[in-house]
Amino acid sequence: MRHEALVEVRTRAGIADPEGATIEAALPALGFTDVNGVRVGKAIRLSVEAPDEDSARRRIEELCSAMLANPVMEEVSVTFERSPAGAGGSR
Amino acid sequence: MRHEALVEVRTRAGIADPEGATIEAALPALGFTDVNGVRVGKAIRLSVEAPDEDSARRRIEELCSAMLANPVMEEVSVTFERSPAGAGGSR
Repeated sequence: MRHEALVEVRTRAGIADPEGATIEAALPALGFTDVNGVRVGKAIRLSVEAPDEDSARRRIEELCSAMLANPVMEEVSVTFERSPAGAGGSR
Repeated sequence: MRHEALVEVRTRAGIADPEGATIEAALPALGFTDVNGVRVGKAIRLSVEAPDEDSARRRIEELCSAMLANPVMEEVSVTFERSPAGAGGSR
């Protein structure tokens, strides 16, 4: 069974985030004084073949350790997308 | 009132995603033949001061048009985080 996941990889609190800081520095000049606390991370969408959601989550965590994230500087959260029309394809 | 949002910026279907393609090409060598369909986008977390969630969403959409995303190549989805302990601070 296919599981569609969104993996968010973000820098841990206290680790510098230059991209977020640059966006935040530009906000007042564009009139967005009501926005702050900008942090930029990665949003990775992927599809995993697994018998259930728990197995899919474990595989994604293995993949994060192996390649997608640096656990010293980054933290990861995984959410699964429910397919809008319910069970569809045969795999 | 502060609204904490997650803004996902991803390339539209059909637009090349070299980072996702590179990850996907490396998967078999690492033993992840059960993973495919990798697309890499940005996960931007930010905080907006707005009277309600609809206003906050409109401000974020303005900010995306002004700076965060290129509407020709990218699409955006906005989700709001519920604070875990319910209403907390005074602002």
